[in-house]
Amino acid sequence: MLKGYTVPLTPEGASQLTPPPPWHYSSDCIAIEYWADPAAVTALLPPGLVPDEADQGRAFFWFLDWQFTGENDELTDPARYQYREAFVLVEARLDGKPVNFCPYIFVDNDAALARGWVQGYPKKLGSVFQTRSFAAPSAAAAPVAAGSRFGASISAHGERLATARIQLEAKVDDPRTVFNRPTIIRRYFPQLSAGKQDQPAVNELTLSLMDDLTFTDVWAASAELSIPVVAGEDMHAIAPLRVGRGYRFGMAYSVTDLPILKNYLA
Amino acid sequence: MLKGYTVPLTPEGASQLTPPPPWHYSSDCIAIEYWADPAAVTALLPPGLVPDEADQGRAFFWFLDWQFTGENDELTDPARYQYREAFVLVEARLDGKPVNFCPYIFVDNDAALARGWVQGYPKKLGSVFQTRSFAAPSAAAAPVAAGSRFGASISAHGERLATARIQLEAKVDDPRTVFNRPTIIRRYFPQLSAGKQDQPAVNELTLSLMDDLTFTDVWAASAELSIPVVAGEDMHAIAPLRVGRGYRFGMAYSVTDLPILKNYLA
Amino acid sequence: MLKGYTVPLTPEGASQLTPPPPWHYSSDCIAIEYWADPAAVTALLPPGLVPDEADQGRAFFWFLDWQFTGENDELTDPARYQYREAFVLVEARLDGKPVNFCPYIFVDNDAALARGWVQGYPKKLGSVFQTRSFAAPSAAAAPVAAGSRFGASISAHGERLATARIQLEAKVDDPRTVFNRPTIIRRYFPQLSAGKQDQPAVNELTLSLMDDLTFTDVWAASAELSIPVVAGEDMHAIAPLRVGRGYRFGMAYSVTDLPILKNYLA
Amino acid sequence: MLKGYTVPLTPEGASQLTPPPPWHYSSDCIAIEYWADPAAVTALLPPGLVPDEADQGRAFFWFLDWQFTGENDELTDPARYQYREAFVLVEARLDGKPVNFCPYIFVDNDAALARGWVQGYPKKLGSVFQTRSFAAPSAAAAPVAAGSRFGASISAHGERLATARIQLEAKVDDPRTVFNRPTIIRRYFPQLSAGKQDQPAVNELTLSLMDDLTFTDVWAASAELSIPVVAGEDMHAIAPLRVGRGYRFGMAYSVTDLPILKNYLA
Repeated sequence: MLKGYTVPLTPEGASQLTPPPPWHYSSDCIAIEYWADPAAVTALLPPGLVPDEADQGRAFFWFLDWQFTGENDELTDPARYQYREAFVLVEARLDGKPVNFCPYIFVDNDAALARGWVQGYPKKLGSVFQTRSFAAPSAAAAPVAAGSRFGASISAHGERLATARIQLEAKVDDPRTVFNRPTIIRRYFPQLSAGKQDQPAVNELTLSLMDDLTFTDVWAASAELSIPVVAGEDMHAIAPLRVGRGYRFGMAYSVTDLPILKNYLA
Repeated sequence: MLKGYTVPLTPEGASQLTPPPPWHYSSDCIAIEYWADPAAVTALLPPGLVPDEADQGRAFFWFLDWQFTGENDELTDPARYQYREAFVLVEARLDGKPVNFCPYIFVDNDAALARGWVQGYPKKLGSVFQTRSFAAPSAAAAPVAAGSRFGASISAHGERLATARIQLEAKVDDPRTVFNRPTIIRRYFPQLSAGKQDQPAVNELTLSLMDDLTFTDVWAASAELSIPVVAGEDMHAIAPLRVGRGYRFGMAYSVTDLPILKNYLA
Repeated sequence: MLKGYTVPLTPEGASQLTPPPPWHYSSDCIAIEYWADPAAVTALLPPGLVPDEADQGRAFFWFLDWQFTGENDELTDPARYQYREAFVLVEARLDGKPVNFCPYIFVDNDAALARGWVQGYPKKLGSVFQTRSFAAPSAAAAPVAAGSRFGASISAHGERLATARIQLEAKVDDPRTVFNRPTIIRRYFPQLSAGKQDQPAVNELTLSLMDDLTFTDVWAASAELSIPVVAGEDMHAIAPLRVGRGYRFGMAYSVTDLPILKNYLA
Repeated sequence: MLKGYTVPLTPEGASQLTPPPPWHYSSDCIAIEYWADPAAVTALLPPGLVPDEADQGRAFFWFLDWQFTGENDELTDPARYQYREAFVLVEARLDGKPVNFCPYIFVDNDAALARGWVQGYPKKLGSVFQTRSFAAPSAAAAPVAAGSRFGASISAHGERLATARIQLEAKVDDPRTVFNRPTIIRRYFPQLSAGKQDQPAVNELTLSLMDDLTFTDVWAASAELSIPVVAGEDMHAIAPLRVGRGYRFGMAYSVTDLPILKNYLA
């Protein structure tokens, strides 16, 4: 009997890229609000999503240090399951409601890549860093406090794709005033058989369902963000025209389900 | 209009993990023939494949330095498209015919990971090395000649999964006496929606079709191979009980199609 | 005018591997007390250090997530300056006084490697991970609290050199009851000129002077530690015969000076 | 008795970063002739070197895939000893004679970093790639033949420092018409003791002595090269104002000695 939520399938099931849900996550996050060319944002939306006319071109660029665990203490195997991530969320409307859509996302770990593909996050590999806040007082500690400066960056294939810096200003009492849209993604898996290479086997609009979503210690900050032109990457098309507020916070949630909003193949 | 053979789908299509076929490959390869526990090999076979009773437990462990190109000179962007790979092929029968099946495979590049998933290769990330043969004469050159020694290794998450060493003995005139079985793989993509997490969205037995398959400069060698026990990996269940011949050679082929042999969902 | 505390020396001084002191550090640490073969520990001591007969073979294995800064906000460039480290400290005596000596140390960053060589830490590159404690509550968060489990590992060249796991039990009120010995290192730089290759250019016993050394949130833990046999590394000679207590804590200090205790060339 | 040509020094001597000389090397190389701002080149020269007035600002940017061995078959441990490198050589005069000087160099391996520091190469870590030439015919093979295109790149800390492309045109009969200058480097090791941090412990002008230097299969090519502005690196000061010929070839040599040309401390 072969076991595995993902490949490789084996009799023991230990080799699978990721254990099955539930998946539990906790993270430190830096997110930067910005505005891109509205036409470039619109051009990235999948069928069914329309531009959010209320605040055109608004987006958030996120950097995350993640810890993952399933049900077998995976958090104590950090070489295999701890990871870093960067992504952009652009604002849109689905059936009239405000949502985020994720067109670009990078991680540094294959288990995270596999979970992302299964959900609909279009993950590629990248090298992600963010300034951390350490408990032991020092000029190097970057405490979560007014005046602290944090940097963050994402690179892939040795090219810098985005760089950010923020300086903390004030605690945000109610994070839901900032982070309050559901995230929509597109689950997509191609075919390779001749004549079907333009017909994906899986093509669905999905909701990134986050159980027990928690934000902690949310601070607002002044912010800088750059998304340079890089050969072989299209992300610069939604480079910032204007940068808004930065945020630094903790976030946790669990994943146990994936609502399918549309099946494009039906 | 969104473009992309794989995600991410973008208006320009430059961000996709891999361009669409045709995919062209050339490689330097080290392969080691060995025999594992026949029961452990049988336990890895997907439905429809049966043990090859003719030579039970026979397998080959491969290490490959790959160069990839599509139709846009991708070989001149080696930071993005050059990669290294290691895999094991176990021998089996499909409808009475001798075939290979690939239960474990590792690469160091996300484009290669994506292409593998689309074909049915159960790729995970790893760090792969093999001694190379250089043209400039030196004690360090490892020429393709009798007596030359080559080493190879695959590691993932900082754990050594296999180590090999070979010493070249004699040229093989007809490589088809050694490499003559088609490779069968399992194309598999999970669902995450509640209640369907044990029902994959894609579950097919496929043939790894290799157009214009070419072997060059095939040398036979004495060989050593170890596959140690590693927590979180099942590959040691098919560790060598006996090691046969090693081989060092060049190999090239193209991919334009993927025959589906069985659809397990039908 | 060429500038640089280390190479490369340039007119602008931006390319230097590390800025000059002061160097400020803050870290999260996991340390495991253990006992190795006393003869193996003694065999690693440089001239002038003698075994500590009080508790023979006692050592600590450390894993550290570090943030570094100099005087130019280097902590906001984490891709360049944030790093991870693992090392072992063995106990010894110098002029009758209890000290630690560092025979093995690994980092994942070249600036840290360079600073280490300049001080006398015999740094090599490695890949280091430890479970982190995140603020947002989750099964993945690993809070600093009784019962939390942390893992840690160090690998180099794809070989696992040490793996540890701890489970927090109780806060330590006075960290100086645990960490109270100065660390002695050996500053060493070879010559390559023919006839002098066994005569280092620099060969000194030094004190790793830590200004404003601070420990925070020190917890004691039950602990496991393994240091397996790996080809090409000698560290397994001081593998644990017995494992004592584990500790998890924050640590910060600054470096501005390096006392030279002995010049072996004088 | 502690053993080691470099640290770590151990009773067995297996942990040392690099074995002692002789060091044997073979490589595949891509080198691009170019001209930088002569004042920027002059500003990088150490005391004793003067600009080469004959052809001001001339430099070569090199990319190398290296295989290393000492006397113990190190080439069969490629995970530890195979590496990639990129460097720039600027032209200068020493005592009236034409020489090259190496101001910037990057490698992806700690053994190579250590050997470089000991010689006087100011090595930092980087990620280096070049298109390889494979024996098995394919659109991906990049044979060493007229019309073949090769790419190469060097990145550090996720920033692209240089990118090159060449297209082979014609074989070079006598490589010494192209590569005929000795390479001069600066051996430099700092002090950290208070009051001496601007007085290096080792500060010498040295000759990179290459025994049995051999060039093979040298081809000339058309070439492109870019060295972009990157924060935290000064190399862009010698970015190309004009690009000349490209070259692709094999090179081998051994290192057994290091002539000291000047001791700046004497």
